[in-house]
Amino acid sequence: MLTVILAESELEMIPESIRSHPSIVSSAKKQNKKPGEMLLDSNYHHKAMENLSEGSRRGRPDIVHVFLLTVLESIANIEDKLKVVVHTRNDEVIYVDSETRLMRNYGRFLGLIEQLFKKRKVPSEKKTLLKLQEDKNINKLVEEEKGDFNIAFSPYGKQRSLSRYFESLKGECEDVLCLIGGFPEGDFHFDESKIVDDVVSIYDKELVAWTVASEVLVNYENVFL
Amino acid sequence: MLTVILAESELEMIPESIRSHPSIVSSAKKQNKKPGEMLLDSNYHHKAMENLSEGSRRGRPDIVHVFLLTVLESIANIEDKLKVVVHTRNDEVIYVDSETRLMRNYGRFLGLIEQLFKKRKVPSEKKTLLKLQEDKNINKLVEEEKGDFNIAFSPYGKQRSLSRYFESLKGECEDVLCLIGGFPEGDFHFDESKIVDDVVSIYDKELVAWTVASEVLVNYENVFL
Repeated sequence: MLTVILAESELEMIPESIRSHPSIVSSAKKQNKKPGEMLLDSNYHHKAMENLSEGSRRGRPDIVHVFLLTVLESIANIEDKLKVVVHTRNDEVIYVDSETRLMRNYGRFLGLIEQLFKKRKVPSEKKTLLKLQEDKNINKLVEEEKGDFNIAFSPYGKQRSLSRYFESLKGECEDVLCLIGGFPEGDFHFDESKIVDDVVSIYDKELVAWTVASEVLVNYENVFL
Repeated sequence: MLTVILAESELEMIPESIRSHPSIVSSAKKQNKKPGEMLLDSNYHHKAMENLSEGSRRGRPDIVHVFLLTVLESIANIEDKLKVVVHTRNDEVIYVDSETRLMRNYGRFLGLIEQLFKKRKVPSEKKTLLKLQEDKNINKLVEEEKGDFNIAFSPYGKQRSLSRYFESLKGECEDVLCLIGGFPEGDFHFDESKIVDDVVSIYDKELVAWTVASEVLVNYENVFL
């Protein structure tokens, strides 16, 4: 089994401190919502985000969307060998059922996640597809989800070829946990080396989250499926 | 070098025959556009598309968007080993410069492609990033782009492990061309076996275009880079 955690993803409702910014107020009016009911999105709210701490990093539901489209449509997931968890900068954790057929449309995805933040779950006819839990920091989450071997991906980690790396784990390990950063720049806020067995770099430049996810998935499938 | 063609992608302006449909007219009004200046999108125009031939297959710029985000952010592309071409149901061909940093926001992507259909190119300060040519059918396109070995992907092809398959090509072939379907269901409208060297299935169920692209890219990188 492969568990993939998108860690410190930039998913949050519009913070209190900028809700009265004119651009936020007008954007909310257009959508017939209150500012506090809307996800922060740097595409739409960059003006208001200029005075927000770490403003250039925050408000990136688009990364979560493409990441989820990548992992949920993977062969590993169709084969039921994948668990997907999204962790946010505010230590919310979103558990994504493997049968979730995520909307391709970005606007509808935003609506879905806004509902999730409000109601804490998204049910379907048969079962709960998305579930949100608060107050779960990354240490606690990794402790709960940990596999036989746990890897964090970072451009500052040890350079490895993933295919050979997974080959070397095979036999010894059944369950592998992979931690991928869900932010557009910079590094984890926590010391990832303290909570995983190895910090790995698969390329000497920064990669987007869904590229790291693809590399993990395809190489995992090649070796373990 | 790897060339990836997204073939028969469902990218087209709203067809003449449904431009006067009330839902299209009101959607155009909201965006301050004419119906003929808008991309067909099943997310927004499904009502008007009910009477369109092959309506359940058409209007999927979202597939092209996620496909392009996947391939342009791949290691193969960063290493300058990738050529990306998008072919549409109406035999337009879009050449995508490898340095294109595609917008993550779907609404803005739609605007970009609408501009491309109107002006035939999207320039940046330094060079043309996207270029559209008309009247180029898939035979002509494959003839122009063909590599030492040319593969089409289809669930009806021969079952292959891509990692072993690419290993077997290495040494003999430098340039590989891969044809991936850009439609959400069904099969190519042309006989793909007549224009490529092999028709390959990497999984016994249908996969979305960006999953096939990921499998191709990661396995190509593992073997050829």
